[in-house]
Amino acid sequence: MTDTSARLIALDWGTSTLRAWLLDERGQILDQRHEPWGILQTPEGDFARAYQTVVGPWRETHPELPALACGMIGSRGGWQEVPYVAAPVDAGAIANGLIEIETGIDRLSLVPGVMQHSDATTGALPNVMRGEETQLIGVMAHQPELAQASLLVMPGTHSKWARIEHERLTGFTTHMTGELYAVLREHSILGRPARECQEDASQAASLAAFDEGLANARDAGSAGLSGQLFSVRSRVLADELSPAASLAYLSGLLIGEEVRSATVALEAQSRLKLALIGDDALCQRYTRALSYFDYADVQTISDASISGLMTIARHAGLIEPV
Amino acid sequence: MTDTSARLIALDWGTSTLRAWLLDERGQILDQRHEPWGILQTPEGDFARAYQTVVGPWRETHPELPALACGMIGSRGGWQEVPYVAAPVDAGAIANGLIEIETGIDRLSLVPGVMQHSDATTGALPNVMRGEETQLIGVMAHQPELAQASLLVMPGTHSKWARIEHERLTGFTTHMTGELYAVLREHSILGRPARECQEDASQAASLAAFDEGLANARDAGSAGLSGQLFSVRSRVLADELSPAASLAYLSGLLIGEEVRSATVALEAQSRLKLALIGDDALCQRYTRALSYFDYADVQTISDASISGLMTIARHAGLIEPV
Repeated sequence: MTDTSARLIALDWGTSTLRAWLLDERGQILDQRHEPWGILQTPEGDFARAYQTVVGPWRETHPELPALACGMIGSRGGWQEVPYVAAPVDAGAIANGLIEIETGIDRLSLVPGVMQHSDATTGALPNVMRGEETQLIGVMAHQPELAQASLLVMPGTHSKWARIEHERLTGFTTHMTGELYAVLREHSILGRPARECQEDASQAASLAAFDEGLANARDAGSAGLSGQLFSVRSRVLADELSPAASLAYLSGLLIGEEVRSATVALEAQSRLKLALIGDDALCQRYTRALSYFDYADVQTISDASISGLMTIARHAGLIEPV
Repeated sequence: MTDTSARLIALDWGTSTLRAWLLDERGQILDQRHEPWGILQTPEGDFARAYQTVVGPWRETHPELPALACGMIGSRGGWQEVPYVAAPVDAGAIANGLIEIETGIDRLSLVPGVMQHSDATTGALPNVMRGEETQLIGVMAHQPELAQASLLVMPGTHSKWARIEHERLTGFTTHMTGELYAVLREHSILGRPARECQEDASQAASLAAFDEGLANARDAGSAGLSGQLFSVRSRVLADELSPAASLAYLSGLLIGEEVRSATVALEAQSRLKLALIGDDALCQRYTRALSYFDYADVQTISDASISGLMTIARHAGLIEPV
């Protein structure tokens, strides 16, 4: 690998995976490596060795290239904690918050997370993100319309709903829908029918159950999920729901409630342009959920970490401006 | 024990405890025995032997006394499944649903649970209870005003909000607040600060954090809990909340959301008379939560299983009418 067009070694190092790319000046991938070495699964917790294994081969031919990493690697449980930058933030503020660490083979810059402080006047609660800010910067860099005013939704373990105004991230909320689903499935009475059930539901039955969850979440309206969640069990007992499809129904209830909750606040304002960022299967579920709340034609954007890292690297002077 | 005034052997046999009483014709306790032999903890799962151990001594002197048990002992995971009776129900309908089993030393009647079927016109979801119906019957028997029209709240692992009209249980919802709290505390990221924290919060700090949870749940209004739950973590990260008090805050959020959700539906109607049934500490928390939603002077009623079992026994002809 002696490609002289290489400009940046970029890493997205999250909770469950480590992805590294060798990028040219347009962010095109010259080489890449993915390992299941998220910060919770890094062998022996030895971040330096994991980094050297992944980046070392590129260093032999590219000793001077800057290296930049985003994600949970910069959290308290990661390699070194990078202090949060306070929202509202733009790409420049993120770039100003980089810290550089010594890896044993080179120097690596880490992207800070973003903290939204609580605000007594708006009632906003504190919120944090680490990794998502880089994707948001990446989307803004390539989609001027979304960068002006939008709500960017990043579904996942801890879904983020990020408000974008004039190329800045001005605020966000977290919905821990993915974690709630996993915890209820594994550890609550709601997961028991599915845990004890040997057969899988057909795809059609799963989708139907997911839709029922969405519809029930929508129909509950302002009463919310509190009185609905137990229906994952009671509908099985009442023979309305098969054990095999019960988790799809739970998923529909939870995602439906997330979308209901997050869009309630929007109704009071003019409806913002909305886009989903993330992997296809999950974005499909959210697209379907959004359709239950009359949000149609929602754009889906796949992972934008690379363009975010490129943009931040430019703002930080690690690579030349376009 | 040769008290000739004894009229009924009554048992409340639930998930975690077995309570048995020897009662006179007014429901006064002549003798009692409590064991930690809930249906999940019965030694070797041998319900007959547990029953014989508890009731056997009374049988020697009272061979003819009827015996009646309510609770999860009549569930699929209990001694024998007693089919649900469909709501709306009154004491007579419950009594008609009793089934009698052979215990090895006598015959024991088991109280059925109640199922509410789904209703497409009202949007009601199916719901089940088993044990709570007996307490509701007990409260109705002694509080004519509540028996006419009320909402009886039974906080717990699976809280029940039961609608009472004209001495009948006409419908109910389940809020699995207690289980949600336990699962999130033990298995989610929200419980981690408290799990890793060595010290306990002071009582004042816990109460203050609980109140903050209630206030945030109330202030979220129709947006509900979905975007608030993560604040148990983010407020710790933002130094707004101590790890030691974080579970009290979580409890406030969850109970606050239960009360918000359950009372939203009431606002549309004239406000029903509301009463709490359960143990003092938990009812105190709910009383405080209700005060955040402008429900003041809520009556608290301690466990009403005994009067419920007496009332059902009378309706079933197991003991003489008053």
